[in-house]
Amino acid sequence: MRDLPQLLDLIAAFSKENPFPTFPLELYEPCNYILTLGGKRLRPALVLMGHELFKDTSEAALPAAWAVELFHNFSLMHDDIMDAAPLRRSEPTVHNKWNTTTAILSGDVMLIFAYRFLARCGDADTVLQLLNIFNRVATEVCEGQQLDINFETRANVGIHEYIRMIELKTAVLLGAALEMGAVCANAPANDSQHLYEFGRLAGIAFQIQDDLLDTYGDPIKFGKQVCGDILQNKKTLLVLKTLETAPDSDCRALHGWMQTGAENPAEKIAAVRAIFDRNGIPALVSLEKRQYQQKAFWHLQSVQVPEKRKKVLKKLVEDLLERES
Amino acid sequence: MRDLPQLLDLIAAFSKENPFPTFPLELYEPCNYILTLGGKRLRPALVLMGHELFKDTSEAALPAAWAVELFHNFSLMHDDIMDAAPLRRSEPTVHNKWNTTTAILSGDVMLIFAYRFLARCGDADTVLQLLNIFNRVATEVCEGQQLDINFETRANVGIHEYIRMIELKTAVLLGAALEMGAVCANAPANDSQHLYEFGRLAGIAFQIQDDLLDTYGDPIKFGKQVCGDILQNKKTLLVLKTLETAPDSDCRALHGWMQTGAENPAEKIAAVRAIFDRNGIPALVSLEKRQYQQKAFWHLQSVQVPEKRKKVLKKLVEDLLERES
Repeated sequence: MRDLPQLLDLIAAFSKENPFPTFPLELYEPCNYILTLGGKRLRPALVLMGHELFKDTSEAALPAAWAVELFHNFSLMHDDIMDAAPLRRSEPTVHNKWNTTTAILSGDVMLIFAYRFLARCGDADTVLQLLNIFNRVATEVCEGQQLDINFETRANVGIHEYIRMIELKTAVLLGAALEMGAVCANAPANDSQHLYEFGRLAGIAFQIQDDLLDTYGDPIKFGKQVCGDILQNKKTLLVLKTLETAPDSDCRALHGWMQTGAENPAEKIAAVRAIFDRNGIPALVSLEKRQYQQKAFWHLQSVQVPEKRKKVLKKLVEDLLERES
Repeated sequence: MRDLPQLLDLIAAFSKENPFPTFPLELYEPCNYILTLGGKRLRPALVLMGHELFKDTSEAALPAAWAVELFHNFSLMHDDIMDAAPLRRSEPTVHNKWNTTTAILSGDVMLIFAYRFLARCGDADTVLQLLNIFNRVATEVCEGQQLDINFETRANVGIHEYIRMIELKTAVLLGAALEMGAVCANAPANDSQHLYEFGRLAGIAFQIQDDLLDTYGDPIKFGKQVCGDILQNKKTLLVLKTLETAPDSDCRALHGWMQTGAENPAEKIAAVRAIFDRNGIPALVSLEKRQYQQKAFWHLQSVQVPEKRKKVLKKLVEDLLERES
C-alpha cells in the first residue's frame, strides 16, 4: 500500500483531470470553491486504502474515491446552511459567500456528480454493489443530520441515541469508504464487511475524541477554538455522561450553565469543566472511546490479507486516534 | 398499453407498498406530504408507457417510474425554497409548513431515495443504463434551474437561450421518463432514443403552451391565476418574441411595464396584452409550439412498434398539447 501523501497526490491529479463543467458558471463555481477549502481528503484516501489492501494499484478506485469526496462536500454545503455557519476552515461558507439558493442548488448538483462518478466504477455488477452501499450510507447521513437537529431542542438525549447519531452522521461514511474500495478490488465479502465495521467503529471513536478534544485539547495542536462546545451548550458525550452518572446537584448545576449564554466565557468554561472533572467524566469518555477503538482494530485484524499490507491504514487511524487529548 | 387511469392505479399501489421509513419522522414526513399534494404523476406514467410500448405489463418498470416521481418532487421541494413560494397546489410548501432546514434535508433524502429505487430496476446492466440516463438528466435539471435563476436578473435573454432553459429545466425529464421505460423493457437503442426525443420536444411544446395559457388561457380551464406571468414581469416567450420582432416603441413600452409592480393589475395586463396582440405575438408563439409538437410526433412515429400500441401515449400527449389556449 502506498503511503498517504502518495494517495493524496493521486486524488489531486484525478480531481484536476475531472473538473466540473464551466457552464453555467454560477452553478459549478461554488462546487470548485468548497473543494479547495483544504479538507484533509481522508474519505477518498480511505477508499484507495481499502482498494490497496487487495491490489497493488488503486487507480481503478479513483472514481469511487472522488464520489465519496463529492458526497462529503455536498453534505457540508447543505449542513452549513442548516447550521447557519458563516465560516468553514476560516473561509466564508458557500451560502455566506453567495446565497442560500446557490448553496442548495450547487449542493444538489454535487450529490448528482457523486453518482456520476459512481457510475464509472468498472463493470455493471461492481457499480450496482457500490450504488447499494452508497445509497444506504447517504440515507443514513441524512438521518444522522436530522437526529442531530432534533437533539438540539430535546431536553433528554440518551447516550445510546447520541452514539447512534454520530454513527449515522459521520462514522458510517468512513466505513463505507473503506468498504467501497474493497468492493472495487473484488475483495471477499467478509473482508469488505470487516473493513466497513473497522471504519464505522473507528469513526465513532473519532467523534468521541472530538468531544474530548474540544473541552480538553491543546488549542494549538487541536487547531480549533477550545471549549466551543461548552459555550454553545452542545449536548456532547461529556454532558450526557455527566447527566447519566453525576449526583443530582451537579446535574442541576450543569443544566443551569447550559441555560446561560457566553457572557463570561472563562467563568462558564471553568465551572463546567470542574463539574466534568470532579465526576471523572474525561476518564469515562476516554474509556468509551478506547472500547470503540479496540473493537475497530479487531475488525481490521480480521481482514484476511498479510499484516504488512495493512500497515499504512493502521498507522493512519492510530495516529488520528492518538491526537493529544 | 393500458390506459392512464390503470397506470396511475399501479403507481399508487406501488407507492403504498413502498413507503418512506417512519424514523426519523421529521425527515420523512415532509416527503410523504409533498407526494400527497395531488400532482398529476405524468412522469411516472410516461415511464410505464415507455415500457408498455414494448411489453404487455409494466410492473418491472415501477421502481424506475417511482424514482422519476421522487426526483421530480425533490426538485419541487428545493425549487420552492429558491422561489420563496408559499404555496404549491393551494397547500403550504414544505419550507413554509416546516422550515428551510427541513425542506433542504427532506429534499436531499428524496433524491437519494430516487437512486435507491433505480438500484432495484432489474439486472446490473439495466441499472447501469438507467443510472447513466438519470444522472445526465438530473444534472441538466439543476443546470436549467440555474439558467432560470440567472435570467431573472439579466436584461437580455435570447429566444434560443430561453428554449434551452425550459428544455433543461423540464423537458429533458419527460424525455428521460419515456427512455427509461423503454430501457427497462430492453427496447432497441434507436427506439429508446426516439422516445427520448419525443418527450423532450413535446416537453418544450408544453412549456411554450404554458406561457401562452398563462396570458391567454381560460382561467377556469387552465386552473391557475391568469396573467400571473405579466404581473410578475416574467421573461416568457411572449416577452422575448416581442423584444425580438416588435418595433422599438413597443419594446420600450413593454420594458416600461416590466419595471412596474402590480399596483393596478387590470391596467397592466390590458396594456401588455395589447402590445402582444398588435404584434401578432400569440400566433408566432403558437407557431413555435406547433413546430416542436410536429417534430416530437415525428419521433414517436419512428418508434418501431405497431401504431395501436402507441395509441394511449399519443392521445395523452395530444390532449395535453391541445388544452384551450
